[in-house]
Amino acid sequence: MASFLMNNCFGKSLKNVWCGASVYRYFSKTATSTHLDFDYDGPSMKTTVPGPHSQDLLKQLGDIQNVGAINFFCNYEKSRGNYLVDVDDNRMLDLYTQISSIPIGYNHPALLKLMSNPNNMSTFVNRPALGILPPHNFPDKITQSLLSVAPSGMTRVQTMACGSCSNENAYKAMFIWYRNKERGKNTPSNEDISTCMINQAPGCPDLSILSFMGAFHGRTMGCLATTHSKSIHKLDVPSFDWPIAPFPRLQYPLEEFTRENGQEEARCLEEVEDLIVKWRQRGKPVAGIVIEPIQAEGGDNHASPDFFRSLRNIARKHGCAFHVDEVQTGGGSTGKFWAHEHWGMDDPADIVSFSKKLLTGGYYHKDELQADKPYRIFNTWMGDPSKNLFLLEVLNVIRRENLLEQVTHSGKALLDGLQELQVQYPGILSCARGQGTFCAIDVCDDETRNSILLKTRDKGVLLGGCGDRSIRFRPALIFKEYHVHLFLNIFNDVLAQFK
Amino acid sequence: MASFLMNNCFGKSLKNVWCGASVYRYFSKTATSTHLDFDYDGPSMKTTVPGPHSQDLLKQLGDIQNVGAINFFCNYEKSRGNYLVDVDDNRMLDLYTQISSIPIGYNHPALLKLMSNPNNMSTFVNRPALGILPPHNFPDKITQSLLSVAPSGMTRVQTMACGSCSNENAYKAMFIWYRNKERGKNTPSNEDISTCMINQAPGCPDLSILSFMGAFHGRTMGCLATTHSKSIHKLDVPSFDWPIAPFPRLQYPLEEFTRENGQEEARCLEEVEDLIVKWRQRGKPVAGIVIEPIQAEGGDNHASPDFFRSLRNIARKHGCAFHVDEVQTGGGSTGKFWAHEHWGMDDPADIVSFSKKLLTGGYYHKDELQADKPYRIFNTWMGDPSKNLFLLEVLNVIRRENLLEQVTHSGKALLDGLQELQVQYPGILSCARGQGTFCAIDVCDDETRNSILLKTRDKGVLLGGCGDRSIRFRPALIFKEYHVHLFLNIFNDVLAQFK
Repeated sequence: MASFLMNNCFGKSLKNVWCGASVYRYFSKTATSTHLDFDYDGPSMKTTVPGPHSQDLLKQLGDIQNVGAINFFCNYEKSRGNYLVDVDDNRMLDLYTQISSIPIGYNHPALLKLMSNPNNMSTFVNRPALGILPPHNFPDKITQSLLSVAPSGMTRVQTMACGSCSNENAYKAMFIWYRNKERGKNTPSNEDISTCMINQAPGCPDLSILSFMGAFHGRTMGCLATTHSKSIHKLDVPSFDWPIAPFPRLQYPLEEFTRENGQEEARCLEEVEDLIVKWRQRGKPVAGIVIEPIQAEGGDNHASPDFFRSLRNIARKHGCAFHVDEVQTGGGSTGKFWAHEHWGMDDPADIVSFSKKLLTGGYYHKDELQADKPYRIFNTWMGDPSKNLFLLEVLNVIRRENLLEQVTHSGKALLDGLQELQVQYPGILSCARGQGTFCAIDVCDDETRNSILLKTRDKGVLLGGCGDRSIRFRPALIFKEYHVHLFLNIFNDVLAQFK
Repeated sequence: MASFLMNNCFGKSLKNVWCGASVYRYFSKTATSTHLDFDYDGPSMKTTVPGPHSQDLLKQLGDIQNVGAINFFCNYEKSRGNYLVDVDDNRMLDLYTQISSIPIGYNHPALLKLMSNPNNMSTFVNRPALGILPPHNFPDKITQSLLSVAPSGMTRVQTMACGSCSNENAYKAMFIWYRNKERGKNTPSNEDISTCMINQAPGCPDLSILSFMGAFHGRTMGCLATTHSKSIHKLDVPSFDWPIAPFPRLQYPLEEFTRENGQEEARCLEEVEDLIVKWRQRGKPVAGIVIEPIQAEGGDNHASPDFFRSLRNIARKHGCAFHVDEVQTGGGSTGKFWAHEHWGMDDPADIVSFSKKLLTGGYYHKDELQADKPYRIFNTWMGDPSKNLFLLEVLNVIRRENLLEQVTHSGKALLDGLQELQVQYPGILSCARGQGTFCAIDVCDDETRNSILLKTRDKGVLLGGCGDRSIRFRPALIFKEYHVHLFLNIFNDVLAQFK
């Protein structure tokens, strides 16, 4: 048994707790080592979390910022691989990875090596205005990195600094494309030019983006108008009157509800078409449809490949651009580099945006979605080439170590384990679901969910919540079956306390 | 005479051109060396710009992105101090510094040293979700860096990734503050909570931000609704019906138009009050006023300290938050760290946003502008601690080398020179203006301005345009009087061609 189980914050052997409480065991049934040179061999908890050192820092930072969302303070120097170490020397198996934004674990040797290469220094020290004065190696670097994993049908990419900026600019690209289509070969009128300066139509037209209930696309004001996951994100911020369609609410297990789920998806698709027609009649035509392949923040809501294929066709039929937001799903954790690859389409989207695990933000787009003139999609930095350097190395590691296959393998073990646990704890858990390691499970209620998250953390595993009462799993791509069982053992211990 | 004058793309001695054309000379009247170990001693032009290597790369990148705004490709490894070197080995004195975002020149030794310190590595390699899991040294680092230069009356700061995100979140902070003020001690109603999820009032209220014609505050959709500098930024993007006030159009030289300029500022202030009243009556109350201390992108438009003091009082009187956008003006180039310090106020603003020269985005705010709950101002990264590391070192250099004093000194030499040149070339130049090295001058028309920019670049000096027909000067803080004269000599040569 891993040493961490012998050492816990209550000063007694966790082994006893575990043996007493559990009727369901994974008991290190697979590998006994991580096969990662830079990984630790298990969690190790020294204090409750947040520990005394974290609490001191929390007070200090509280004089400067709202610290209500802070979990604890971290020692990133000591963190390694799948393990996040905090300032009180607690070492936690991290299945949340900085809100799903650490692709290959902490302090990966490949990234450290990149940092020690003096040839890379100037990329960090001299951040360029990429839109006007890119570095000599920029075309090569984005060809080798971002374009080497471009979604089907896309050869163009625009980098941006973060997920929100990526989506904001993707929306602008769709608006520009739509208006140019409306104008045909005509140039903007004088009225277009003069009215846009004062925020009025026709220069600033009454176009809309169709989004889905439960969606999360960011928190800047354009993105926020398409975000509908939690009220705390939206309250008190002015917004746009844009159409919002229902996202399918599938019933689980899927194989038992084929007919019901098919009907539910058909209902949502019908509503999408109704809304497109209705908003056109209102004088606010839908320029684009934006959707996540899996609604993450909104509760890990899935839909079938059929649903997405039909939606893509509806967009085409009505002349709306189709924007797939892969900010959270992109980068490999579903077992494919892009979650939309699971739909099996040659022409899955007009725009695909990304950030998080890709370390740089940005969006791919089809040729016709490129703005017709310079400075229409533009800002000072337009991304950061130093992040692109890291991404290139991350992609090398993913390929070299076959991490997508590993994710598929670990993900199956994780989902199998969750499904067994929900049989074991039917009063607590339900709707285990996932693709690759991008998994989630529902808890009976919000309060129990939050309590489980805290108790699991106290035992050395970091998880995230999403939706009203779901737990989401977002490990790094180096998360192996060994870690799955390590997690399941601990999770089982926690659940046993609730039974 | 500096060696660069002997070597130009036309293959003949620039010295002859210079001697023949010029009747007005600065002739290296001050220092003959830069006193910067890492600086070059002058421009050196090998090809026309963009040179053949840049043109090849332009073709390559053109298959991936819109490259219409790209000037040329850079060799950032070879760039040093005030000089940007391109891929064709042209070395240019840079008075534009990546749209004003390079604070202490290229490859500053202090920043390179920081990169070679292994203790800093993990900050680059492990980008945290700052809002939930900050690094152990985060409170100390922002205290030593951002808070050490906090605007008067502000002890709180929120970091963000870029200027647009900073302003977007500053606007949200003002909306939240305003609605909480309206509610008094009441919590949000059930109607607030439910309507905000579908973008409707009262949850998403009809509040507005008052901005000024000619302003630039960014290009994401919230920011863009307050940006009114160029139509290319705004065309085809839906916007908000928010009030837009006139920004004073001062006449130069200021000392000759005291009365007229006073009247112009009074007219604008009166219009601001009228708009606040009018928008309140329309049911779209003004939650905040946003303004740049100097409208940069819009044409380097200045107003007097009196104007800003009165505006701040109007904001207070009408219960609007006052947001000073220092994204371009902040960081020292006006001779003070913040341009608003020239107003001489103890309580200059409720919110001050920054980015560019500070390398990290973000905003300072008064205590009452802090969101009342966590996750209201939030995103995955909330900035980037590695940028903060650089900023700390930049501030050390600024203090150690008295760069603000130097900026004041160089800026006076620059403005004196521009004023002399506009006397010399009255048909071409007018309205020389500036604070520190944050200077600008108007050119007779757009076409001549653009031609001057290109010809000056061909002689090895990079400048920027702004507004309809202005040239803006945005050198780094290490720009010395020596460089001023170097520039003025070249500028004079170029102007002589237009006489």
